[in-house]
Amino acid sequence: MKIGVLTIGAELLNGARIDTNSNWISKTVIDHGGMVEFNISTKDNQSSIIKALDFLLDQSIDMIIMTGGLGPTHDDITAKTLFEYFDDIPILDEKYWNFLVSRFKKKGFKVSALNKTLALKPSNGKIIDNPIGTARGLHFSSNKKEIIALPGVPSEMKSMMREATLPMIKKISQKSIHSSILRTTGITESSLYEKLFSLIKQAPDVELAFLPSLFGVDLRTSSTDNDKFSNFLMQVKILLDEFIYSDKNLELEEVVVNLLNNHNLTVATAESCTGGLIGDRITNTSGASKVFKGGIIAYSNEIKINQLGVKKETIQKFGAVSIETASEMAAGVQKLFSTDIGISSTGIAGPLGGNKDKPVGLVYIAISINGVTTVYKNNFKSNRKNNKRITSQVALNLVRKELLKF
Amino acid sequence: MKIGVLTIGAELLNGARIDTNSNWISKTVIDHGGMVEFNISTKDNQSSIIKALDFLLDQSIDMIIMTGGLGPTHDDITAKTLFEYFDDIPILDEKYWNFLVSRFKKKGFKVSALNKTLALKPSNGKIIDNPIGTARGLHFSSNKKEIIALPGVPSEMKSMMREATLPMIKKISQKSIHSSILRTTGITESSLYEKLFSLIKQAPDVELAFLPSLFGVDLRTSSTDNDKFSNFLMQVKILLDEFIYSDKNLELEEVVVNLLNNHNLTVATAESCTGGLIGDRITNTSGASKVFKGGIIAYSNEIKINQLGVKKETIQKFGAVSIETASEMAAGVQKLFSTDIGISSTGIAGPLGGNKDKPVGLVYIAISINGVTTVYKNNFKSNRKNNKRITSQVALNLVRKELLKF
Repeated sequence: MKIGVLTIGAELLNGARIDTNSNWISKTVIDHGGMVEFNISTKDNQSSIIKALDFLLDQSIDMIIMTGGLGPTHDDITAKTLFEYFDDIPILDEKYWNFLVSRFKKKGFKVSALNKTLALKPSNGKIIDNPIGTARGLHFSSNKKEIIALPGVPSEMKSMMREATLPMIKKISQKSIHSSILRTTGITESSLYEKLFSLIKQAPDVELAFLPSLFGVDLRTSSTDNDKFSNFLMQVKILLDEFIYSDKNLELEEVVVNLLNNHNLTVATAESCTGGLIGDRITNTSGASKVFKGGIIAYSNEIKINQLGVKKETIQKFGAVSIETASEMAAGVQKLFSTDIGISSTGIAGPLGGNKDKPVGLVYIAISINGVTTVYKNNFKSNRKNNKRITSQVALNLVRKELLKF
Repeated sequence: MKIGVLTIGAELLNGARIDTNSNWISKTVIDHGGMVEFNISTKDNQSSIIKALDFLLDQSIDMIIMTGGLGPTHDDITAKTLFEYFDDIPILDEKYWNFLVSRFKKKGFKVSALNKTLALKPSNGKIIDNPIGTARGLHFSSNKKEIIALPGVPSEMKSMMREATLPMIKKISQKSIHSSILRTTGITESSLYEKLFSLIKQAPDVELAFLPSLFGVDLRTSSTDNDKFSNFLMQVKILLDEFIYSDKNLELEEVVVNLLNNHNLTVATAESCTGGLIGDRITNTSGASKVFKGGIIAYSNEIKINQLGVKKETIQKFGAVSIETASEMAAGVQKLFSTDIGISSTGIAGPLGGNKDKPVGLVYIAISINGVTTVYKNNFKSNRKNNKRITSQVALNLVRKELLKF
């Protein structure tokens, strides 16, 4: 079924906020048989909202999902606009009003500050419950089109989509869509396409979308046919093998922490050019404390030598950005922190510090495990922040690949 | 002047990419006298683009800025659509075509892969040069409305906006807008509003927008009247004083690195709950190597004791998340790394590990400088990632505030 999204709020049109709601909705409805055809953002004024509604209702779409403007402040005019637009005379929902009042009193707020709009319910339309907030959603039907209005707060919108709107989309589209995301890293989009080309040609009933980012390419597979879907997915997994780091939509650092936990192994980091980013990512995962002892951010040569035990001569002879320094950093931190694995990064993040022999983007990553240290040379050619990010991804992926051997 | 934005691309409607172009355009045109009224995203098919154009041309707006669909692949149908829409019979720009062919040959690409659409120029409309790519922009005028089409690649779109479209907006709007962003941290939006309330009331000709994020609130001041603008800005700076960390749109870490450089001081980090994030942020700034020696990510107690020299008894008696441990961490790393400043973090990022006495979000941040260590207790009450982020912001702000005393 076809969907139009209408996001409402001045903050979306003056640059104060990026509209992530419409992106989330677009991504999420697909798995339930929906496809967004138009996305419109308007200010929170009545005439703009009406113009956008007129436009969307004029298209061959089955549902309009609106977000924003349902709160208690004077800017929040979505409910009022919809009541007028659909000639609906709303009534006060006494039960909900009493609930709001007692809730306000309990929190010590002034009840006078409470807006009755929050407790209005349409005569013809329906209410959509808000499991985590006070602003409820609205649902009108007009001319075989469903019009859904949800709050703009992302957590509330998402929870209401999951509980009410997505099941409705699934029911209307009458499609049971099977879908799955395989996350890959260490392989380009074009190489993935080459590897999967004949498989894609053989499976016209399965849709495969390539979603590239700095960290790799996510592959979204979907189909209405369960057998074809499962078979396709199995083939992709065989073809891509270790390039896939998750089929459960996990971050690479979560996969690494889980693998370390499973094998009861520990890791420590010795970071130069990444400046702490690898440790930051590992510790974004709950449970990291069981496997991550810590690390040394050895940004200056002095710290590389004094703390990590890199030999002074190594830096003098080969430089801080070299195979030799990377190797001694990884081995050094592994020994010093008594961990099973040591991982290091040293490179030229840019924009300054590069030269002909050692250009910006040159990064050595080393991993020390079971007494063996291996160094990988990379040329990332991006800007400072992205060179750091890509380095952290490659480093974490090296740890993952080593752990797969256990 | 009023502007409509039309972003084109299937990837914007299937969730593969967040539309950051429209956000950038919305934010940027304001300073040149423009205001976005509607933003529409459509798939790259001709009928959808035409429907969106019809809608936007029907509104009381002065300009439509389109992005996307100008490249050489079969999906790129913006140019074709616009030529047909405006009854324009385009002609081949021989000079540009020859330039493209020679460029392709130089790079070793097949000329057959080159699409002539790239070298078409409108008979009635105009070409907008692309300083950094091959896809040029288009400019049509219709019914006193300007229609601008730019590539979807953000860097190309931005450079063409800066060189051609923004000056055009400024000329049409005939407004010279003065604007400035003051970045604040460590103060809530409502406290800011209270502090600025009477000033705002006294200056109706100056517009002040509050742009809140996890890291603080940015204040965007704008006015057409230069004197009133400068006066307002001066008053805000006096009222908010040290809550403002930048009036040049810098990140907090850039401000800290610049201040350290100015005072010729060095810093080291001892991070537990932030796991390396403070170091990561400092090293996002070019020039950090002059002032940041490095740090120790002391995630486990063993590392806090063995590497940072935190006393075993301190952790046994007070716990790893305590004033005492934070203090010994900051002082320890400052001494160990021989820096002027040591900064530490220890806390419960969550979601696990909290209890009644030490809840999730409890974070101690310590700063050691000139032989004095000061510890700050915080209760952040957010999720794991955000507790880490807020901690890094508060820690960097503490360093900044100490440096202001020099």
